[in-house]
Parts: sequence; structure tokens; C-alpha cells
Amino acid sequence: MTIDLGPNQYGKAETRVVRVYRDGPRHEIRDLNVSTLLRGDFADAYARGDQAGVLPTDSQKNTCFAYAKEKGVGEIEDYALDLARHFVNDIETVSAARIEVDEYRWDRIAVAGHEHPHAFARASGETRTTAVTVVGGDEAPAQRAWAVSGLKDLVVLKSTGSEFSGFLKDRYTTLAETRDRILATSLIARWRYQAPWPESWDEAYAQIRQILLERFATVHSLALQQTLWEMGRAVLEARGDIAEIRLSAPNKHHFLADLSPFGLENPGEVFHAADRPYGLIQCAVRRDDAADPGPAWDSATAFA
Amino acid sequence: MTIDLGPNQYGKAETRVVRVYRDGPRHEIRDLNVSTLLRGDFADAYARGDQAGVLPTDSQKNTCFAYAKEKGVGEIEDYALDLARHFVNDIETVSAARIEVDEYRWDRIAVAGHEHPHAFARASGETRTTAVTVVGGDEAPAQRAWAVSGLKDLVVLKSTGSEFSGFLKDRYTTLAETRDRILATSLIARWRYQAPWPESWDEAYAQIRQILLERFATVHSLALQQTLWEMGRAVLEARGDIAEIRLSAPNKHHFLADLSPFGLENPGEVFHAADRPYGLIQCAVRRDDAADPGPAWDSATAFA
Amino acid sequence: MTIDLGPNQYGKAETRVVRVYRDGPRHEIRDLNVSTLLRGDFADAYARGDQAGVLPTDSQKNTCFAYAKEKGVGEIEDYALDLARHFVNDIETVSAARIEVDEYRWDRIAVAGHEHPHAFARASGETRTTAVTVVGGDEAPAQRAWAVSGLKDLVVLKSTGSEFSGFLKDRYTTLAETRDRILATSLIARWRYQAPWPESWDEAYAQIRQILLERFATVHSLALQQTLWEMGRAVLEARGDIAEIRLSAPNKHHFLADLSPFGLENPGEVFHAADRPYGLIQCAVRRDDAADPGPAWDSATAFA
Amino acid sequence: MTIDLGPNQYGKAETRVVRVYRDGPRHEIRDLNVSTLLRGDFADAYARGDQAGVLPTDSQKNTCFAYAKEKGVGEIEDYALDLARHFVNDIETVSAARIEVDEYRWDRIAVAGHEHPHAFARASGETRTTAVTVVGGDEAPAQRAWAVSGLKDLVVLKSTGSEFSGFLKDRYTTLAETRDRILATSLIARWRYQAPWPESWDEAYAQIRQILLERFATVHSLALQQTLWEMGRAVLEARGDIAEIRLSAPNKHHFLADLSPFGLENPGEVFHAADRPYGLIQCAVRRDDAADPGPAWDSATAFA
Repeated sequence: MTIDLGPNQYGKAETRVVRVYRDGPRHEIRDLNVSTLLRGDFADAYARGDQAGVLPTDSQKNTCFAYAKEKGVGEIEDYALDLARHFVNDIETVSAARIEVDEYRWDRIAVAGHEHPHAFARASGETRTTAVTVVGGDEAPAQRAWAVSGLKDLVVLKSTGSEFSGFLKDRYTTLAETRDRILATSLIARWRYQAPWPESWDEAYAQIRQILLERFATVHSLALQQTLWEMGRAVLEARGDIAEIRLSAPNKHHFLADLSPFGLENPGEVFHAADRPYGLIQCAVRRDDAADPGPAWDSATAFA
Repeated sequence: MTIDLGPNQYGKAETRVVRVYRDGPRHEIRDLNVSTLLRGDFADAYARGDQAGVLPTDSQKNTCFAYAKEKGVGEIEDYALDLARHFVNDIETVSAARIEVDEYRWDRIAVAGHEHPHAFARASGETRTTAVTVVGGDEAPAQRAWAVSGLKDLVVLKSTGSEFSGFLKDRYTTLAETRDRILATSLIARWRYQAPWPESWDEAYAQIRQILLERFATVHSLALQQTLWEMGRAVLEARGDIAEIRLSAPNKHHFLADLSPFGLENPGEVFHAADRPYGLIQCAVRRDDAADPGPAWDSATAFA
Repeated sequence: MTIDLGPNQYGKAETRVVRVYRDGPRHEIRDLNVSTLLRGDFADAYARGDQAGVLPTDSQKNTCFAYAKEKGVGEIEDYALDLARHFVNDIETVSAARIEVDEYRWDRIAVAGHEHPHAFARASGETRTTAVTVVGGDEAPAQRAWAVSGLKDLVVLKSTGSEFSGFLKDRYTTLAETRDRILATSLIARWRYQAPWPESWDEAYAQIRQILLERFATVHSLALQQTLWEMGRAVLEARGDIAEIRLSAPNKHHFLADLSPFGLENPGEVFHAADRPYGLIQCAVRRDDAADPGPAWDSATAFA
Repeated sequence: MTIDLGPNQYGKAETRVVRVYRDGPRHEIRDLNVSTLLRGDFADAYARGDQAGVLPTDSQKNTCFAYAKEKGVGEIEDYALDLARHFVNDIETVSAARIEVDEYRWDRIAVAGHEHPHAFARASGETRTTAVTVVGGDEAPAQRAWAVSGLKDLVVLKSTGSEFSGFLKDRYTTLAETRDRILATSLIARWRYQAPWPESWDEAYAQIRQILLERFATVHSLALQQTLWEMGRAVLEARGDIAEIRLSAPNKHHFLADLSPFGLENPGEVFHAADRPYGLIQCAVRRDDAADPGPAWDSATAFA
């Protein structure tokens, strides 16, 4: 028996890159949180502390800033792919790179009904995300790339149109069935693109976000599971470039307040929004002929 | 010398009340975080553990839910005043009550371009706040009330139109002057109403929020201090029912990335958004003839 | 009627200063979070954007680091007083300075039973705090100083020895009385020193912390109010240099799990630890002859 | 092409179970955060909203509390295994269950030098964790089980004995080499047990924690990678029941403050502790003959 180094990766996490486009009086702003993760031949750094093949995480951070100027920050998927290919192509010891980007949206402040050219308010709703992985040598078809984009912290609620009944009951079941409840979640959705990739990542994002919202709103929910399935299926039906979508949804419970001790009825009007515990529903919806995901889902948060 | 009980208050903090109005197919939703704080004759609870005069915090929580049904949740200032007056008027040992409410806004989900009647997405930008204090017996003029409303977590940014120069330099000063920088903050604003109170708290909130945003956008900033002063002054000029406004603004630094080692120019395009430390500017803007604030600013967070 | 600038202050918040003492093989480490707040004649910065009297917050940050070398970081009260006096004495426009410091403790890692000379693990329990305020010219008695020290996030729990009964009942009361419950809180305590100040701030801190813990443990609690009073009173009885102590204590509810539907008894054994809402008890305990607190309690968090 | 349901799981997350043992005057306390995740035949819940096979998450929560009484909470691994086996064995539709538990430690308050029998202060350092997975029918060898235990938020720092030099330099490298720096991290470690499992999970935890601390302290670090490798290897060398250990370590940068503008030297004495970005090093150390991990690492956080 010997003891070996197993899977490993390293990089610079959460570099906060803000890019201002100021070509005319009307500025544009892109606000990113960027993490880089490199994989490759780093065994000597572990075994002997030999850094000869190790590009410092500080250099990776510098590259994130430099590329925001050299390559620009248009769509975050392109920015991430540029960074990933650079590390794989230009750093000899790197055989694979994963770049994870969160993007925060800003809305223009309206002044007297007109959009201001350089003043913004943060639109704090959901965060747009991408995670790209590039593996292998820089000549096609040796080099492969995966893109998983998504959103997180999309908090949605239905005040009716949701029931939960007919469930399995065991010795520990005390929950009452209900035909009308509040359904609320803080959605994480991540979808894996397959070739051919979309012409516009922004357009794809906007369409998928809208489908998720519309299906959440319009599906009469018999269970959060069913709602998620309908949301995911609609995305795959609408877009052939999505191989798979994964949804993770906490069931943010809203409990009906018991007002009967005070002689008050409460027909679905007053609720207590609870923090913990919460239900948690996670599912993947995918094409049966989807290409192999490879390392597309191997994130930093999944590591340990 | 003796040891005495000094100022004291107690209550239930952060009761998460959600009120759904479902009189027709188009639901309305109010989503609140409510804290109650009672002051009065509670010395025996401290000195001897005698609870005879102590209304449990659990009862206060129940009242928050019951009032959401009995009185409804229209404007948060009215809901808070109803609760405060109830505690002062109906609980003999209570001589003063403070109710603090945060309100989270929800937007309707748009389906095929139309607002959905009962599906919502959380509008996570700023949080609307109020803190009302009611003191004294229930017959006018013995009973007095104060209302301090506001907003927090309003994150705004200007990509130009901000400079910082001509400042005092001491032995420890290394900062370079700049004629063009990013100015960003996460604003907390609280304004104290004076009689006669507005006919519509909602309208007042909307107008003040808009004034703050517009002044932030349009004032050419020589300092964050000057921007805050102009924001506060504009609010007082627009509304005679505001006695005072207090602004607390972290200067969320965006540092220009140094790209010169890579042969790149960076004319205000690529920035590093830093977390800590941050500048912090706090000021009050007030009328010289404003009525005495009394206990209006005595919050739970200020206590210790 | 005119509109005026009211109270105002500014500074650099949350500068994370780490000071290593390495005079011999056995290192010492002090880990601080430092905030500076200056008050004085800054009206021109607000009214006209004139920075001539404004010491940049960046310079204040530099001073925090430089003083960690020049003056050292022994006891945080002394470090804070040095900084406050410097700003008041050396910066002409500054008439008062408040310095707030949080200190994180580190324990030495034990290797084979012996303390390691330069390896530490963070002792994450409570955080030690101080907030000093210096006002006025640099010649006594013109210059005055206040020191409020304390701790926060001291999480304590009693699994018995706590009851809650005999309380006032109103229309909204449903809580059952109990003779045995879990009592838990996350304590914030702040105490104001009066002259003559202690010879050793560290010794005073250690003694007060121990008194708070012991009284929490040994007082049979009829109410959290009574427990806080006994804790505070014991501190003042033990030390003549404490004028006042303020305690803020969330009642972190532990609800007995209802196991009766499963045919199980639960005699105070299984509890659900709830997040929100929570009770909140705040009180001051003070000497009747305590000196005027002046601006001792005017913190940044209290401002707005 | 068809659209299918892919991997899915559901359960109740973050149930906060507190168990008091009060068999005599000296109480014991176990404080847990428990999450359950069930896998099995739930396709109908997704496709048709049919809950007939779905055990409510509320029932799972009830089971967590009931088992704290029925089975007790000794070592968290045993408690989690009891729960997992129950769901797989007793709920027909469940084919696999994963139970994740965090445990918060409490220390006894010392009163006059003696440990108090029922008063505790939270020892907030690291959190102990376990995640067990049970798959398959309830007769051996059909049923298999995996246990991955660990710790998180173990914050450690070395004030010397760490260097970083000889690294790869590219066009974007500006970092200076150093022979003496602060090394600090907030460690996440998770180790996978292999048969035969330890007789005492508590003893295994204590030993592994101590090995990690001692190796961090005593290895002269040429890179965080090397330190992690030495920590992981030492664990596997000491215990034959560990198949693999995974380490995730943010490099919490402490930057030397530049005091030269003030005429001050800074030989490794004053540092700025930065928040973001941070380096991130992740690695697995494993036996070459380790059994297949199966689903041992498939956590809720890894899902999306």
C-alpha cells in the first residue's frame, strides 16, 4: 500500500472585477466575482514544496484584471472561456482550467424619467453565473470545453396555486394535507450547454430565466418536485443547445399563523416565514442523448 | 453609593410576518420583519424575577400576527403605530413602546407580458424601514408618537462624476488626488417625520427614495460628504413633514487596477472592488426649527 | 427656517490589523478590527465639497498600521487611546475622535502537549471590544476621554435552573408557564470605565468576563431580566472602576420537541433550537453616582 | 430524443436538534444541525405530482427529533447511520439515504475553578461534521454504507515557518518571492472511513484533529500545497481505517503593511488581513488500494 495524491486543483477565488465601458457619455458596467482553478502536473508542489511549475494565484488574479482590459468583459461565458484557454494554452504545467464567474446586475437610475448615463443602482435579485472548463492541448479536437451557466438566489413565491396532499404517511407523520398553501423558494438553476453553443449567451440567459419564472407562475403545483420538473422540461424543450439543467430549491416554508386562540379566522392570509429547517428538493432534467458531462459539474464547492 | 437599574427595554425581535390579501384573483402581499420593544415598570422582573407585570415576548409575537389580520398591513407605519399604541394603552405596565419594521418588496412575475395575479419574485434591492415610538397615556396630549422611516441597503454607483482632491495631508497621507473615480455606497437613510404627518406614507417613501437617487446621480461629487448633504437637503426642501434625515454611507472603494506591469493603460476602465476597510460617512441634515427628537432614535441596535 | 448640518462623523471602518511580536522564538499575535471616526469642523466638506480640512480615511487607515509599529499593540484600550489622542491633538480640524476595536483571540496549538511558539488556532468564542472617545484640546483638563470596553458573541446556555412563570397574561397570551427550561443567549456586554482607570485593562477584562460567566451559571433564573441584573450588579460590586454596564441578550429559544404523537415522553431532553423570532432583553446597570457618560455610547452603529 | 428525470434527491435541511442528557446532576449536551436527503423511486412526484411514495420532509424532521430520544445522540456517526438505515429499511420507496450532521461543541463554564454541571459556553472553533450514505436492501451484503466525517472552519495561522518562492513566472506575474510570511487558512477536512470502522468515532475524530493541527504547526511550509499533503499523509499513516482525506484550504492572505513612507521598518510585524480574493487549494490524499468511494462524496452542496 502507498499513499498518493488524488484529485487536486488550486487558484484564486472571488476576485472582484468591475469593468467600466466609457466610450461615450453613456457608460456600461460589468460587475463580476471571478474564481480560477487550475489542474495539472503539480505533484512536486505537494510532495516536495517545489513551486517551479506553480503559477501563483496572485498571477491568476492579475490575469483576471488584465483580460478585463485586453479581451474585455462582454458576455461572462466568453470572458471565462478566454481565461480558461489562456491558462491551458500558455502555462505548460496546466492541463485543465475551470473559471467560475458570478455577475451582479446594475440598473440605470432614472432621473426625471430618463435613464442616467453613468449612475446605477444594484439590481440585487438573482445572480447570473457561469462555470467553464477547458481541458487538453490547444489544437482541436484535442482541446475540449464545457460551459455550465445559471442563476442563483432567484427568490419566488406563489400565494396560491400550490397544494400538498396524498403523501406517504409513516409513524412519524403529523403534517396535515393542504389544498392551498404558499409555495416559495430561492432557486439555484444551472444548465449545461451542448454544441453548437448559442450565438448569444445573453439571449440564452434571458430566455431561460423567463421560462423558469413563467413556469413557476403558471404551473398549478401539486408538489415542488413537479414544479421543478415542469420548469426544467420547458427549458429543454425551448432550446436544443441545453443538454441538462439542474435545479436546487429550498422549500421556504410559510406556516399559517394559528389565530384561533384569539377568535380570529385565518383563511390563507397571515403566515409565519420560517428560516430553518427547510425542505430541499434537487433534481436534474436532461436529454437522453445528451453528451457526456465530463468535468462540467466539478466545482470548487463540490470538492470537499 | 447604590447600584441601580438604568434604561431597559425588552420585546420580540424579527418576527417574520407575511400577509396575503386575496379578496379577488389578484393577490397582494406584504412581507415584514417586525420587532417590538416595551419600556415601563419592569424593575421587579430584574430585581426579584417577579414576572407579574411582564407581558411575554411570545404574546407580543402573537399580537404581531393577530394585528396583521385584525388591523391589516397597509402601510408599515400605520401597522407599527397600531401595535405601539396597543401595548401602551392596553398593557398597564407599559409606558412606552417602540416597533421596528423592515419591509421586503416583491414584484409580480410577468407572464407573456402581463403581470401574474399571484406569483411574485423578490425585489431584493433596498429594504424599506420604519421605527415608531409611542410614549405615555392614551389621552391626547398626554400620549406622544414619533415615526422614523427610511431605507437600507440601497447600493448605488457612479462610474464618473466624482473626484477627491485638495484634502488635508499629514505625515501618514499617501493617497493620490483624483479628478475621476468610481463612487459607490450602500446607503442607509432614516428620516424623522414631524406633524402634520403625511397623508400617504407610501407616497412619501416613494418621493424621498426618488429624490435620494436623483441627487446621487446628478450632483457632481467633490466628496461623499457633499453628495450626502445635497441628498439630505433636497429631501427637506421637498417635504415640510420631514424634520431631519440621517444618512450613513460606507464608501465602497473601487481601486483602479494597476495594469502598467503588463504594458496596458487603464484610463478608468478596470477596478478592484474591495470589501474592507471602507470609508464611513455619517451625517444628519435637519431644520433649525425641528421639534425635539425625544426617543425617536433610541433603537435596539443603539442600545449597547 | 433654514436647513443645517447636524451631527456628523467620518472615518475608516474595519481595518484588519494583525500585529506579530517576534522578539524571540515564542511569537505573540494580536488580531484587530479597527474603526476610526473623527468629529470636528467639516462643514465646508459638506456644504461646498472643500476637503482642505478633511484628513482622508486612507490616511487614518495608514495611521492604524503605523501605530501598530510605532506604539505597538499591547492592550487594545491603550492602542485605541493613542490613536484617538493623535487625531485630536495633531489634526487641527478634529475636535473629537472615537476609535472602536474588536480583538480576536488566538490560542497556541499544542504539539505533543507543549504550546507551539508560532502556530495558533483561532479561539472563536466571544470577541473582546473597546470603544474610546477623546474630546477637546490636548491640555488637561481641557481634554477628556471615555473608555467603554466589552465583549460580544459570548454564547452561553443552561440546560436547567431556569423557569418562566407568573407572567402577565393578556388576550394574546398562549404561552404555557414552565418551571424548567433551557436558557440560552448570545451576550453583548459593554462596560464604561470611570476614573481611576484600571492598571491593567487585560486583568479587568478577564475578571469581568469571569464574573459574567459565573453569575450566568449560578443564578437560578426566574427570568432572563433577573439573570442580567445579577450579572451586571456583580460586576459593579467587584470593581469600583466600572460606572455602568449595558447588557443586550437575545433569548435564543429552545423549544421542547413534541414527541407525544410518537408515543414518546420528553422530560426536558430533546429541543428544537429556533432562529427567529427571538426575545431581546436589554438593560443598563449603573451606580447612582456615576459620572456623566458624555459621548461614551455614541457609536457608528447607533448613528442611523 | 426524450427528456428524462436525472439524479434527484430531497429531504429536510438544517434541523437544529439539541439533546440534553440529564440522568444525574451533571448534564451532557449535544447540539446538532441535521439534514436528511432521500433517493429512490420518486418519478411520479416529478412527472405527475403524485405524492403517494413521498415521505414528507416534515416527517423526516420529526424523525430526527424522535430518534434523538429513541436512539439517543451519542456519536454523530451512529445517530446518522441509525437515521439513514431507518429511511432505507422502513420507507418502501427509498433506496438510498444520506444524512449530514454538523455538531457544535460546548464547554462547561468554570465556576471557582470547577466545571459547572449544567452551564455551558459555546466553543465556537471548528465544527465537527459527518455525512453518511446508506444504499440498498436491509439484508447484508445487499446494503452498503459509507461514512465521511470531518471538520470545518478550523482557523489556523503560523506567524513564521512559511515561505513561497521559486514559483513559475509568466507575463502577469508581479508577486515577490518571500522566505518568511504568515500562513493562515480556514480548513475544511473530510475523511472517508473504510472497513473496519473505528470502535470509537469520537476517538478517531480527536486523533485526526490533533494530527492535522500538529502537522500544520510543525511542517516548515514551502507552499500551502505541501503543508496540506503532509497533513493528509500523516492522517493516513496513523489510521488504517481512513481510505482518503480531502482538504480544502483558502489561503487567507496577510499582506505586510508598507510602512516605508512613514520612515518605519516592518520586519514581519504588521500585516493587513485581507478578505477577498483569496487563494484556494484543494487536494485529496488517498491509499492506492482504497475501496471505491461510491456515493460517499455526493453531497447536497455538490448537487448544482
